[in-house]
Amino acid sequence: MPAAFSISASDGPARLGTLRTPHGAIESPVFMPVGTLASVKGVPQHILEQLGVQILLGNTYHLYLRPGHEAIREIGGLHRFMSWDGSILTDSGGFQIFSLNELRKVSERGVDFRSHLDGSSHFFTPERSMEIQIALGADIVMAFDECTEHPAGRERARESMEMTARWARRSKQYFDEHKDEVPWAGEREGRQSLFGIVQGGMYSDLRRESAERLLELDFPGYAIGGLSVGEPRELTREIIASTLPLLPKDKPRYVMGVGYPEEIVEYAALGADMMDCVLPTRAARHGLLFTSQGRLNIKNARYARDQQPADPKCACMVCSRYTRAYLRHLFVSGEALAAVLNTIHNLAHYLDTMSSVRHAIKLGELRAKLSGTTPVSEQTS
Amino acid sequence: MPAAFSISASDGPARLGTLRTPHGAIESPVFMPVGTLASVKGVPQHILEQLGVQILLGNTYHLYLRPGHEAIREIGGLHRFMSWDGSILTDSGGFQIFSLNELRKVSERGVDFRSHLDGSSHFFTPERSMEIQIALGADIVMAFDECTEHPAGRERARESMEMTARWARRSKQYFDEHKDEVPWAGEREGRQSLFGIVQGGMYSDLRRESAERLLELDFPGYAIGGLSVGEPRELTREIIASTLPLLPKDKPRYVMGVGYPEEIVEYAALGADMMDCVLPTRAARHGLLFTSQGRLNIKNARYARDQQPADPKCACMVCSRYTRAYLRHLFVSGEALAAVLNTIHNLAHYLDTMSSVRHAIKLGELRAKLSGTTPVSEQTS
Repeated sequence: MPAAFSISASDGPARLGTLRTPHGAIESPVFMPVGTLASVKGVPQHILEQLGVQILLGNTYHLYLRPGHEAIREIGGLHRFMSWDGSILTDSGGFQIFSLNELRKVSERGVDFRSHLDGSSHFFTPERSMEIQIALGADIVMAFDECTEHPAGRERARESMEMTARWARRSKQYFDEHKDEVPWAGEREGRQSLFGIVQGGMYSDLRRESAERLLELDFPGYAIGGLSVGEPRELTREIIASTLPLLPKDKPRYVMGVGYPEEIVEYAALGADMMDCVLPTRAARHGLLFTSQGRLNIKNARYARDQQPADPKCACMVCSRYTRAYLRHLFVSGEALAAVLNTIHNLAHYLDTMSSVRHAIKLGELRAKLSGTTPVSEQTS
Repeated sequence: MPAAFSISASDGPARLGTLRTPHGAIESPVFMPVGTLASVKGVPQHILEQLGVQILLGNTYHLYLRPGHEAIREIGGLHRFMSWDGSILTDSGGFQIFSLNELRKVSERGVDFRSHLDGSSHFFTPERSMEIQIALGADIVMAFDECTEHPAGRERARESMEMTARWARRSKQYFDEHKDEVPWAGEREGRQSLFGIVQGGMYSDLRRESAERLLELDFPGYAIGGLSVGEPRELTREIIASTLPLLPKDKPRYVMGVGYPEEIVEYAALGADMMDCVLPTRAARHGLLFTSQGRLNIKNARYARDQQPADPKCACMVCSRYTRAYLRHLFVSGEALAAVLNTIHNLAHYLDTMSSVRHAIKLGELRAKLSGTTPVSEQTS
């Protein structure tokens, strides 16, 4: 049985849900921190647990290259390898092949690409992506797709979307035939779930057609992919807003690779159940903190003697202990602890944001919350 | 009142002691992790607390350059700045000026040096070092000394030692006149303590003379400096062994900048009460782990599928959760978490080593423990 999804409350298109995977129950809408190489950069797993992380994202492309899916399979899967007993989702590798490999060659059969590490040649097919993701053993795995570049003309976007649809069918066939080969088979209740990915570029009608073709395959969950590829953010929002209603109401809907804090709130309000993004973790490493008062660039000299926490309204382990002056000192001095603490805070902010979204849905107050959304610009106080 | 030191048990020259500072009681012999720039690289303070760190070392030279002692004074001192409520010791800056500044110019008045960061000119005197250390507000501060280079001829070592003795007098005079200016004066019981530093290069008779001249000044604690400057380790041991008995039995004795795990056990057996070293933290960042079975170079390919913890006999939060295979993957992939976890384990090993030393002294079994010391070479199993 794949992941079971149930909805306990709704507020307009937004839903409060529970997604049950072999590694636990996830309350949705949920934000999934990115743990590219089996690690959320700089943060020990017990701190992720303390932060209330419910599900982590791992990158199939990266883990295939290092340490290799066979090594992870042999050890019992990604959960055991990284000592993470919560849920995990792996992407299909399609997005990384797209974003890290300018010399990739796409054919009907699959994608020929070179490792960004050593230039070695590799070939991914839908079947191969499934094989790797089964070996990694995430709770939720993604169909192999082609992430259409932006900008793309209508014909190019159509061809790409159609290939993604054919690859989805091949992904599902391989997955159905091999899903019992997950390394933890027999040790856990339930099975891996395979989600389909809607493509179609920035064309609403192609997105609709993509969704319709995926729905024929009856996946237990659906994602919207091919966003955050350089398009204006208003366009991202439009595609999400027009595509979400095309996906089944009783299945989890996953918007891939988004977004800023105010965006994840908005997408949840539009009916998204799952989101992931490198933004909180990557921005943290560059000294950008997300707070209840907006964004804060911690390297700014104005914080040199500021004894307030990064976010006075935040109760995280960073804000309850350290001052902006200290965080700035760590960052400008190149101390490793800067990235660790900034990442912990940003994750806390994203997770708390999603927690408050769930609370608002329960109370039927998500729209009111949205209209009070904090502006994007850096605070000036 | 400076730090009070009491001895509750002894085992040969080794002593089980309690050192009371304005920020708590320290059980000795104690290992002090190095927090150069107000941070033990990569490790959040609450984890240092969980590890049982009793006292941290901060570097006066580095903190003077970044963020500057005036900024730290204004914020209330180093404890508040870095949110560390345990004890802190600062060195005098002498060792860093020696090791990071090839163009330094030493005169009777003080040392002219250039910042290793931007080449700017600075001048440290004994008075200036005290002023900075009072502003930083560590519980224990160190007299300004000249760290004699190695090798040094007898005449050069004598001149250097004599200047250190004169600087010790000037340090003490300035400290006595200004010790009430510590930022937390009035908020804590007790005062900062100023320790003297024995120099004299690798000449036992000069070490003796240095100790005698310092004893006239009646410091509340004494350190042996000028070691780990490139001399053979057997010579380090000889100097420590011959100098420790020259220091008062009723005062804490601090051996600066040592050593490997088996060495800190040996020095404690010789009567050292306090030690600090960058080794556990720096080696961790290079993938070298200290274990009950010897040293382990985690990047070694032999650990790629090794599902044992780094040290099967270690109960630290790293060894109780992660495998060698995972730690190796993090290290060879350049993941920030590698340094974090390796540092936590190495600190746990050092702190546990010292804890077992204290236990052995209590039982009168330290010599027996020493003879069972683990060999230095990498384990081969």
